Amino acid sequence: MVNNILKKFEMFDELWTPKIIGELNGQYVKLAKIKDEFVWHSHENEDELFMIFKGTLVMEFRDRVERIQEGEMIVVPKGVEHFPRTENGEIVWVLLFEPMETKHTGQVQHEKTVNDQQWL
Amino acid sequence: MVNNILKKFEMFDELWTPKIIGELNGQYVKLAKIKDEFVWHSHENEDELFMIFKGTLVMEFRDRVERIQEGEMIVVPKGVEHFPRTENGEIVWVLLFEPMETKHTGQVQHEKTVNDQQWL
Repeated sequence: MVNNILKKFEMFDELWTPKIIGELNGQYVKLAKIKDEFVWHSHENEDELFMIFKGTLVMEFRDRVERIQEGEMIVVPKGVEHFPRTENGEIVWVLLFEPMETKHTGQVQHEKTVNDQQWL
Repeated sequence: MVNNILKKFEMFDELWTPKIIGELNGQYVKLAKIKDEFVWHSHENEDELFMIFKGTLVMEFRDRVERIQEGEMIVVPKGVEHFPRTENGEIVWVLLFEPMETKHTGQVQHEKTVNDQQWL
């Protein structure tokens, strides 16, 4: 099935609640809208790809900060603590690529943790 | 490392020669420029994602044809024969996501087969 990525983003407004749009080789392609701060976390066994479709994702690491803009991507390797956030109340559109078993808050159980992953 | 995807596409002109720009969970993120016809093939064990950054990819299957345009993606499941091509001499920019061991011509050894995968 062909997926129009921007149209899929337009189908939901919930923040910090990744939606699945594809599956391959035990990995999910997910879309998320994020705003303000998430939570410091890491994933013990999973690398995670973030590709930006709108806005600027600020990714804090313990030793540096990266700004990932529209049309850019970053891979966060397993075990690396990261803290995604946005600036000035901006809603940022992010495509994620990660193993199916990945929890978005990693090892941390937080009020923002979503345990049920939904297809869009 | 942050990757600007369009800038990476601008760094090469070779056709049908995927370049690796990222690695996660045993999968590669690759960029390819394609034009005209490739070859009918399938991948025995690997699903393959195609995301279009410029132009229209025509993906022929044995039972149908899909046109995947800029901003769209498609997953071709393992074992499914497919024949990627473009129309009217258009050069199409494609981001691929697939296991590291995937050969782009699948089970078929063809003059277009590239056996060495290169990082960009």
